[in-house]
Amino acid sequence: MNSWIEGADSRETHFPIQNLPFGAAKLPDGSIACVSAIGSFVVSLTALEAAKLLDTGSDGDLFNQDNLNNFMARGSNIWRSVRNQLVDLLELNGKPDLKNSSRLQVKVLFLQSDVEMKLPFTVAEFTDFYAGKQHAQNVGAMFRGVSDLPANWLHIPIGYNGRASTVVVSGTDIRRPNGQLKPLGADQPVFGPSNKMDVELELGAVVGTGNKMGTPITIAEADEMIFGYVLINDWSSRDIQAWEYQPLGPFQGKAFGTSIGAWIVTKDALEPFRTQLPPRDLPNLPYLEETKPGLYDINLKVDLTPKNASKPTTICQTNYNRMYYSLAQQLTHHAIGGCQMNTGDLLGSGTISGTKPSEFGSLLELSWNGERQIECTGGEARTFIEDYDRLTMTGWAQGEGYIIGFGECTGCILPAIKM
Amino acid sequence: MNSWIEGADSRETHFPIQNLPFGAAKLPDGSIACVSAIGSFVVSLTALEAAKLLDTGSDGDLFNQDNLNNFMARGSNIWRSVRNQLVDLLELNGKPDLKNSSRLQVKVLFLQSDVEMKLPFTVAEFTDFYAGKQHAQNVGAMFRGVSDLPANWLHIPIGYNGRASTVVVSGTDIRRPNGQLKPLGADQPVFGPSNKMDVELELGAVVGTGNKMGTPITIAEADEMIFGYVLINDWSSRDIQAWEYQPLGPFQGKAFGTSIGAWIVTKDALEPFRTQLPPRDLPNLPYLEETKPGLYDINLKVDLTPKNASKPTTICQTNYNRMYYSLAQQLTHHAIGGCQMNTGDLLGSGTISGTKPSEFGSLLELSWNGERQIECTGGEARTFIEDYDRLTMTGWAQGEGYIIGFGECTGCILPAIKM
Repeated sequence: MNSWIEGADSRETHFPIQNLPFGAAKLPDGSIACVSAIGSFVVSLTALEAAKLLDTGSDGDLFNQDNLNNFMARGSNIWRSVRNQLVDLLELNGKPDLKNSSRLQVKVLFLQSDVEMKLPFTVAEFTDFYAGKQHAQNVGAMFRGVSDLPANWLHIPIGYNGRASTVVVSGTDIRRPNGQLKPLGADQPVFGPSNKMDVELELGAVVGTGNKMGTPITIAEADEMIFGYVLINDWSSRDIQAWEYQPLGPFQGKAFGTSIGAWIVTKDALEPFRTQLPPRDLPNLPYLEETKPGLYDINLKVDLTPKNASKPTTICQTNYNRMYYSLAQQLTHHAIGGCQMNTGDLLGSGTISGTKPSEFGSLLELSWNGERQIECTGGEARTFIEDYDRLTMTGWAQGEGYIIGFGECTGCILPAIKM
Repeated sequence: MNSWIEGADSRETHFPIQNLPFGAAKLPDGSIACVSAIGSFVVSLTALEAAKLLDTGSDGDLFNQDNLNNFMARGSNIWRSVRNQLVDLLELNGKPDLKNSSRLQVKVLFLQSDVEMKLPFTVAEFTDFYAGKQHAQNVGAMFRGVSDLPANWLHIPIGYNGRASTVVVSGTDIRRPNGQLKPLGADQPVFGPSNKMDVELELGAVVGTGNKMGTPITIAEADEMIFGYVLINDWSSRDIQAWEYQPLGPFQGKAFGTSIGAWIVTKDALEPFRTQLPPRDLPNLPYLEETKPGLYDINLKVDLTPKNASKPTTICQTNYNRMYYSLAQQLTHHAIGGCQMNTGDLLGSGTISGTKPSEFGSLLELSWNGERQIECTGGEARTFIEDYDRLTMTGWAQGEGYIIGFGECTGCILPAIKM
């Protein structure tokens, strides 16, 4: 499949016609539009709908919004219909309406470099999981002195509720938090800036349609409810977390900010890259049995650009196929007791770490809690994040002659507020 | 201070003119209105605003809403102004406009028995704390075999993020969840209905105004941001919780439902009942030092009505003044690392248990994890909640000749869905 859009057929672009992810952008005129991406351009769905080139069956205001929530709430038939209409408008031999009208193109197409990406959806609630086996073993070894998995781990896709109010879009600076820290050997905590700022590389599922309170869902229903996937950097303060997290879990160590990529990649675009879960170490209970290949073959990479450095250093290369539980399993478990899931709920996979040290998805693991320096280009070295360092995640699935990309999820750490 | 409303001066009513809590109600005509309560009546703020008897400085639509969120977001000056205008309209010797107009009264006043109370605000996010020392010691003894407080407990008002989507108003039935359980002595978990359904008696702070991401708040600012207080029943499934909660905290054991009282009692109404925190066992870090009496003298009671019983049995009588941390301290800690708090955030105090066994605020503690039967009126006995049992919480502050009541927070447990 090819597109008439200049550059969209490049083997390097994250956004060929096979992708068509969804997002929201502030356009050069200051308005905010729902958009898709193709090559170096964004496509305004808001303008296409206004020009009656997208049949959305909803009085023409499905995309006349600051975000995708209304669209997401409409369900998988309309998601697929819009995607198919977009393909038709952008394909080389498709519907000529946009291709042949410069008048329309100037209203619909914008260079990505000319727009500012916004949070693609209003996050209803954010739940973070813990589905990477290697990560769970690594953290256990460092935080609890044992690399054995917790007793429940092979049965439950362990998750906890995170904070939705501080989920921000890629590009937003994140301020280092102050908090309670217990220095090694001290008998009292002190208050001050976190000294162990970290990243967590995750993939997120964006819930499109919900369920009713009291009504559990099946794995197949969960998969149907997922609108698409985004990159997540679940920024973490390891020293705040270590002191606070027992007995009730992470709280302020995770509450100061979570970055997500600007682009939600659809299930349809990722369908060719589905891959099996790894074999079960112990059988899952029936409600958690996957009905199809539950993971995706998505390459993931984390770059660290130290303050003043001219070039990034790749500190992690891994793949989403390393996980033990799928996001459909996690969503099913989330609702199994009757918990209501809503449009805009965001579920994080948990940190994605492969078995090799170069595949660890957090600095905690890469530096083994600060014991090992991570060498960066230009002579710098890091254990945790220093002020003004930039962390950038990317992800892509490799097709035959094209890639399905997630764009990037980037953020720079600012110094803590002086208190 | 007296009111011209019939019965509002009774020493028994929860809603004398000194109270004037806020809520939302479905009126007999099917419309939903923002309301206050006086004696046996609700007062439609929506109708008062429409009749131009409330100056809300906002084009007359502050209460033309299904809930209080817009009002809450406006801040403490308008909260107090509306309250003062209500007092003036309802006081015996106040402004005569409502008192002297039957035409207005039929639009503004409704019997509480004729309306259906709705969720008073849209819950943005729900955070649950753990600020009762006796409760923490009791749970530690039962779940972890030690009654010592966790090492961080005297320094941090421990909290975790709960689930907002299943917060419901008093009167809503709650369905017993299914989930993973690990029977005593079993080596594998099983799936089925929870056998240890419990209540948790809590007081909740409703956040009216928020802070910006990255901007911590002081204790004084936190107190100013709190719109008012509600009763909370943080329903808990102890067997699901016990198997899932390590290492990342409670999840499905708490996600199936949380009930709140229909009435938000204002800080102004509770001001005469402020009371000091208990002495600190260890000094708090400066950011957590309370600047005024941080607790309130609020009597609390939990009644259990077994299925088919004609009368409730009071199973717990305690007081909010038993807590170790105030809700202002908890809110301050919540935001100290830069977490953004929003209008509609709900913070639960944690289970309120006094030192005497009759003051324990959960069945887990009252039955000592099922070891001890709780005798109920009419020959029934309980350790945990059985299907069709009703749990009802009430709370009130005792003034001189009047009480400031919270109404009740009640719910009935329905059988689990068959799966």
